[in-house]
Amino acid sequence: MASSIKFTDCSPSATVRLCPSTRTRLRSSDGAVLFHRLLGLSRPAFPRTFVSRSSTSTLPVISASTSTEATAEVIDGKLVAKQIREEITAEVSRMKEAIGVIPGLAVILVGDRKDSATYVRNKKKACESVGIKSFEVNLPEDCTEQEVLKYVSDFNDDPSVHGILVQLPLPNHMNEQNILHAVSIEKDVDGFHPLNIGRLAMRGEEPLFVPCTPKGCIELLHRYNISIKGKRAVVIGRSNIVGTPAALLLQGEDATVSVVHSRTKDPEELTRQADIIISAVGKANMVKGSWIKPGAVIIDVGINSIEDASSPRGYRLVGDVCYEEASKIASAITPVPGGVGPMTIAMLLSNTLTAAKRTHNFQ
Amino acid sequence: MASSIKFTDCSPSATVRLCPSTRTRLRSSDGAVLFHRLLGLSRPAFPRTFVSRSSTSTLPVISASTSTEATAEVIDGKLVAKQIREEITAEVSRMKEAIGVIPGLAVILVGDRKDSATYVRNKKKACESVGIKSFEVNLPEDCTEQEVLKYVSDFNDDPSVHGILVQLPLPNHMNEQNILHAVSIEKDVDGFHPLNIGRLAMRGEEPLFVPCTPKGCIELLHRYNISIKGKRAVVIGRSNIVGTPAALLLQGEDATVSVVHSRTKDPEELTRQADIIISAVGKANMVKGSWIKPGAVIIDVGINSIEDASSPRGYRLVGDVCYEEASKIASAITPVPGGVGPMTIAMLLSNTLTAAKRTHNFQ
Repeated sequence: MASSIKFTDCSPSATVRLCPSTRTRLRSSDGAVLFHRLLGLSRPAFPRTFVSRSSTSTLPVISASTSTEATAEVIDGKLVAKQIREEITAEVSRMKEAIGVIPGLAVILVGDRKDSATYVRNKKKACESVGIKSFEVNLPEDCTEQEVLKYVSDFNDDPSVHGILVQLPLPNHMNEQNILHAVSIEKDVDGFHPLNIGRLAMRGEEPLFVPCTPKGCIELLHRYNISIKGKRAVVIGRSNIVGTPAALLLQGEDATVSVVHSRTKDPEELTRQADIIISAVGKANMVKGSWIKPGAVIIDVGINSIEDASSPRGYRLVGDVCYEEASKIASAITPVPGGVGPMTIAMLLSNTLTAAKRTHNFQ
Repeated sequence: MASSIKFTDCSPSATVRLCPSTRTRLRSSDGAVLFHRLLGLSRPAFPRTFVSRSSTSTLPVISASTSTEATAEVIDGKLVAKQIREEITAEVSRMKEAIGVIPGLAVILVGDRKDSATYVRNKKKACESVGIKSFEVNLPEDCTEQEVLKYVSDFNDDPSVHGILVQLPLPNHMNEQNILHAVSIEKDVDGFHPLNIGRLAMRGEEPLFVPCTPKGCIELLHRYNISIKGKRAVVIGRSNIVGTPAALLLQGEDATVSVVHSRTKDPEELTRQADIIISAVGKANMVKGSWIKPGAVIIDVGINSIEDASSPRGYRLVGDVCYEEASKIASAITPVPGGVGPMTIAMLLSNTLTAAKRTHNFQ
């Protein structure tokens, strides 16, 4: 975000309350049970529960000025992701038994960036944990675009590969778009192809895949029974991989969506009107308590490291949202880490399973 | 729009002030001259002029309560469209002389709807007026989807056809999506293909074509030197052909965009925050004066017929916006008719010219 957004640090004393037993309870405003949408299973992920959050967007229940303790429900992405991986494990196993097919995910890693290597390792481990077969290619930093395209093409043709993921960023001498567009639309489990984004934007069209991180955000809202229809939503950030698809998904679920970005003159004013905030900017603690309407639900996509002398590593991870302030005002909030992060990989596995099911017409 | 939006008629006494000599003048907030963007010509469409409209979005200059007369600039779409057609005529002629190619537009009309026949006739006439060759196919209401697809396929293969337009709506027994998706992406001058919409949504991607009506809306803002960057914009309506691409275009030009639709709980409250309003709903006079921030710019896409005993035809055309009220509050407004309507066909011609230039690599 640009100069119009002030950035100051939050106090490091915010405590993430991850234990499910301490969670306050969320109201289902329309009575609909949205559990287990992802895989169409019948048993709810969490008990269907109710709280004191107001049913209208204009009547705050929790007052920022009088509340001194964190009162927000913690949206436990780690727990939900674990549950989704268990559901996927069951489905992978069912598919293997029924038609003998094992879903396969190919990951192409170019260069030796440490963070990219970690992400790829985590994805591989996640695949193993649910029974998805993973294929990995590591290419040197100085390989050519043609070499990468050759691997993409081979994976496109390989029937045991159902999803292809090119780990970004690619080295500067390569045209990222050329490579991403070369991935077969049927195997684009990242959902970044413009055709998928276009279908996401259009009423009456269905994308083959929804990008993993925004899909994870919406899945958290569903699993926590937070109603989206008719709500005011603000998405902070307009990236191709999170902000824009998140806004399109929210609109598709009948939220009234505003997108705040680096050129927005008063991001605080507009954000404060939101019942649901999804922040995907990458600025530590940018969203202060004053930006948040009492009772709002906050999905924090940012994962930012800030200096912390008290940590053995000398730093710690925080989100875009000042958790300590926000947790006193919001009705529900994702922690960082342990919120959206684990959901991204879970959704990647989900998309890979979907790809395999679609290819083999397996319900 | 649904029950949450009240609808009452406006007084019919609003006078559309179309004469350019009576226009008040628009300020250029960033000093940039945006004239003639469409074809890159050098002479401005209108004199570069300045007015008293505030440079910030929060300081209204024109007060609704003290102003008794219409004060808004009339955004004269008819005049701008005429000018664009003249520019296209010159380009078509230059292209023919330079490389001997005449741009061609094919229109497929199925059935005998009177309104569709009128639209197709107008498009054909517009083509003739600028020197674009038009191809027309009229198929009976009871023809098969396969027959329509055969014509689409033939036009896809015909090098003298650079743009293909299937007039909507199609008869109910046909799958509209199948037919629209069959149009070659290089000839999709309507810009409705999901790949085009996806590219429109994504930063760093360029659509081959932008849908005609929203493109016309933005072109009007450009030609009237109305700055978009950093402005709050509200798009009312989220259709695939106007609302959604209009929102994506505004966001691409760095506006902060909110989309209001039938599930929005308080459309008036959000709309009143907008510096720029694009309404594409199809409800006569839905947007009242109270919805409009003093000094806002209004692009009214709606064309609705309402009963009018004083008219020889018994009806007259009005927009989504109550013109009489809005013209006293807004700083600029498009009339209906004579606003966005003429721009849609002008943009279709522009897209056809673009298609021909791209095919023949003609600058």
